[in-house]
Amino acid sequence: MKRIPSQIAILTDFGLNDNYNGVMEAVIRKINPEAKITYITGNSKPFNLIAGAYLLYTSYKYFPRNTIFLVVIDPGVGTSRRPLIVKTKNYVFIGPDNGVLYPAITSEEIIKIVEIKNEKLYLAKTISNTFHGRDIFSIAAALISIGVELDTFGNQVRYEDLTKLDFTYKSSRNEICGKVLYVDHFGNVATSIPKEVLLNNFKYGENVEIKVNNSRHKCRFVKTFGYGMENELLIYFNGYFLVEIGINKGSAKDKLNVREGDEICLEGYIQEDFSHSI
Amino acid sequence: MKRIPSQIAILTDFGLNDNYNGVMEAVIRKINPEAKITYITGNSKPFNLIAGAYLLYTSYKYFPRNTIFLVVIDPGVGTSRRPLIVKTKNYVFIGPDNGVLYPAITSEEIIKIVEIKNEKLYLAKTISNTFHGRDIFSIAAALISIGVELDTFGNQVRYEDLTKLDFTYKSSRNEICGKVLYVDHFGNVATSIPKEVLLNNFKYGENVEIKVNNSRHKCRFVKTFGYGMENELLIYFNGYFLVEIGINKGSAKDKLNVREGDEICLEGYIQEDFSHSI
Amino acid sequence: MKRIPSQIAILTDFGLNDNYNGVMEAVIRKINPEAKITYITGNSKPFNLIAGAYLLYTSYKYFPRNTIFLVVIDPGVGTSRRPLIVKTKNYVFIGPDNGVLYPAITSEEIIKIVEIKNEKLYLAKTISNTFHGRDIFSIAAALISIGVELDTFGNQVRYEDLTKLDFTYKSSRNEICGKVLYVDHFGNVATSIPKEVLLNNFKYGENVEIKVNNSRHKCRFVKTFGYGMENELLIYFNGYFLVEIGINKGSAKDKLNVREGDEICLEGYIQEDFSHSI
Repeated sequence: MKRIPSQIAILTDFGLNDNYNGVMEAVIRKINPEAKITYITGNSKPFNLIAGAYLLYTSYKYFPRNTIFLVVIDPGVGTSRRPLIVKTKNYVFIGPDNGVLYPAITSEEIIKIVEIKNEKLYLAKTISNTFHGRDIFSIAAALISIGVELDTFGNQVRYEDLTKLDFTYKSSRNEICGKVLYVDHFGNVATSIPKEVLLNNFKYGENVEIKVNNSRHKCRFVKTFGYGMENELLIYFNGYFLVEIGINKGSAKDKLNVREGDEICLEGYIQEDFSHSI
Repeated sequence: MKRIPSQIAILTDFGLNDNYNGVMEAVIRKINPEAKITYITGNSKPFNLIAGAYLLYTSYKYFPRNTIFLVVIDPGVGTSRRPLIVKTKNYVFIGPDNGVLYPAITSEEIIKIVEIKNEKLYLAKTISNTFHGRDIFSIAAALISIGVELDTFGNQVRYEDLTKLDFTYKSSRNEICGKVLYVDHFGNVATSIPKEVLLNNFKYGENVEIKVNNSRHKCRFVKTFGYGMENELLIYFNGYFLVEIGINKGSAKDKLNVREGDEICLEGYIQEDFSHSI
Repeated sequence: MKRIPSQIAILTDFGLNDNYNGVMEAVIRKINPEAKITYITGNSKPFNLIAGAYLLYTSYKYFPRNTIFLVVIDPGVGTSRRPLIVKTKNYVFIGPDNGVLYPAITSEEIIKIVEIKNEKLYLAKTISNTFHGRDIFSIAAALISIGVELDTFGNQVRYEDLTKLDFTYKSSRNEICGKVLYVDHFGNVATSIPKEVLLNNFKYGENVEIKVNNSRHKCRFVKTFGYGMENELLIYFNGYFLVEIGINKGSAKDKLNVREGDEICLEGYIQEDFSHSI
C-alpha cells in the first residue's frame, strides 16, 4: 500500500492574532485528521513576496521528503492570478502564481505544474473573494495529502509561463551587488550573495565596505555575531549560507535603514564580471 | 467501541511570548498524548470579549465534528464568573461564562450546559486564582477528549441564564447599523452586517457611504481588496460573509479610527425597518 | 519493546516571524515524523537568559514524563559555550550551557549531563556558526527521541561546572528582596519571591509597599487581578505560586518601569534573616 505523505508545512502572512491560520488548519484536519502540520511561519511580512519566497527557499530542504508546502502570501487574492500546485521530485508546493514559490521550485526537479481550476475541489460552491487560503489552497493541500492526483485539479501550466522572482547577484568592476532578501526579527539583514563570495575575497577579521541606499558602512568579517562589539556592524554568512549583515544583540536593519528588495553591494578586489542566480 | 474525539482547538488571549499556552498544551498532553491540538489563535486581543467571540464564531464550523473548543479569554479569572462546558450536536465548547462562547453556541443545537464545579477534576487540590486556563479549563478539555461525561463536572446551567453577547444589526429609515466585531492584523474592519445587505442594496463599483464615530467616509463596493487603489477605502464581504471595510495593502482601521464594539452604519436606500442577530 | 518518548517541548527566542522555529521542527520531523511537538514559546525575549530560564522553570513540570525540552536561547551561538544534554529522573533538557537550563534542572534529580561534541551527530559535515538550533540542538532532540544514548553525544560534564543562574530571594531587617524574573505580555511583573512570604506576612486587602529601582509603590494584596480597580497596583501570587505585581487590564511594567533582573523588595514586618533559592 502506498504510504500517504502527510507532512504539511504552512507559510502565510496572515499573522498570529487572527483566526486565518487556524481556519486553514481546520479545513485540513477535517479531510486528513492525521496530517502533521508545521508552520514555516504563519506571520511572514504582509504582502512581501521577496520575504515569503526567501523563507520558503531557505526552509524547504530541511523538511522530510513528500512534504506538502502550503504557501499563502497572496496580495492578489480574488484577482486573476492563478492558484498552482507544483509537484517536484521531492516535494509538492501549493500557492499563488505570484513568484513566491519561484526560487524554491527553480532549485528542484519539476515533475508537473497544474493550475487549480476544478471548482468541485473548492471548499464550497460559493467561495469567498478574500480567503482563498481556506477555500482553495488548504483544501487542495489536504486532498493532495490523502492521494488525490494533480490532474484532477486542472490543466498543466508550463514552467516558462510562471511569474518569475529571481534571487540574483552580479559582479562588475570592483564590487559584488545582490539584493536584500530578508530582514529577520533580530534586525539581521540577509542578502542574495552566497557565502563563497565572502570566503574567496576576504579574510576573517578584515573590514568589508558595503554600499546600500547611497550610504557606505564598514563591517567586520566574523564567524558569528557572538563575536561582535556593542553596536558594531558585522558581516558573516548566515545559517542558510548567504551573506548577512548583523549587530550582536542589536539591529543592523535600523543602522542600515534597509528593507527587502534594496540593492546591497560589497566593495573589494573582485576580479571577474558575472551574473548569477542563487 | 466509541471513537474518542481528539481534536482540540484552542483560543486564548495569552499571547505568544509567555508560556501560558504551552503549559495548557502540556496539561492536555499529559492526559491525552495523542490529542490533535490546533490554535484558532493563542493571541486574541487581551480582555476583548467581542474580538474573541468573533474569532470563535467565524472559525468553529470549519473544524471537524466533535472538536473540543478550549476558549480562555477570561478577564474575570478568579472572580465568581462560571466555568462552562457546552455540548452541542456537533461540538463541545469550554470556557468562562462571560459571553465569549455565546455567538457560537447560539448558532448550534445545544444538548447540555454544565458548570465546572467538581474540584476533583481540577488540576490540583490548591489551584491558582489567575490561571484557570491551566487549572480548570485545559484539564477539562483533556478529560472530555478521553471520554469523561459532562455530568461529572457539575450541575446543569440553563441557556437562558448565560451571560449574553449578541452580534446584531438593525435597519431604520435610511441606514443599516451594526457593530465593529473585529479589526484584523491587516487593519481590515469586520462588521456584524451580513453580505446580503450589501448585495441587495448596492452594485459592485458603487460608492457606499459609511458612518462611524461621527465621521463619514465613502467606500467603493468591490469583490476583493485586490482591486483597490492606494489608500482607497473599500467595502466588500469578507471570508466569513460579513461586510468589511479595508484598504488594499493598507489599514482601514487607522483611517476610520475604530475598534471592536463601535457602531458602524451603511447609508443608502434601504426600505424596511428590522433588527436581527447574525 | 521500549516505548520511545516522543514529546518534544521547544523554547526559543527566534520569534514567530522568521523560519527558524519551523526549520528546527523540520529537522525533528525528518528523523521522527511522529514526534509530538509543543512550544513553551518560540518567542521568548531575545537574548534574555533570565526570562527564558523563568519560562522553562515554571513550565516543565506540567509536561508528561520523558518530555524532551529543546531550549535555544543562545546569545553566544558560535562561540565556545557548550551545548548540553541533561538527563534527569523525569525529563531530558537540551540547550546551551549559559544558565538558561539551570533553574529547571536544579529542581530535578540529575542522572547525567553530557556535552554535545560528536560531530557525526550534527546535521551536516559543515555546520553554520549562527544556527546551532538547527545544526546541533534540534537534531540532538530528535535523536534522543528515537532512542540514541546520551553517551554517544560526548563526554560527561559535572553539575558543579555548569554556568549558574540562580533565582534567589533574601530577607534582611525589614524587607524581603528578590529579583524580577519575568514581565509577561499583559505587563504583569513576576518575582523570585514565593507565595508563602506574602501569605505569612500580609493579609488579603492590606497594602504592601514595594521598592524597585529607587522608587516606592503601594500595592493592594488581592487574590487575583480581577478584583483590581482601574490603574491600581495589585500584589498577589501568580499561576506559578510566585509573588507578582499587576494591574487589572493594565500594565504594571509600565508603571514600575522594570525589567528582568531588577531587584524588587517587599517592605514589612519580617522577622528572620535568610537567603534562599526557589
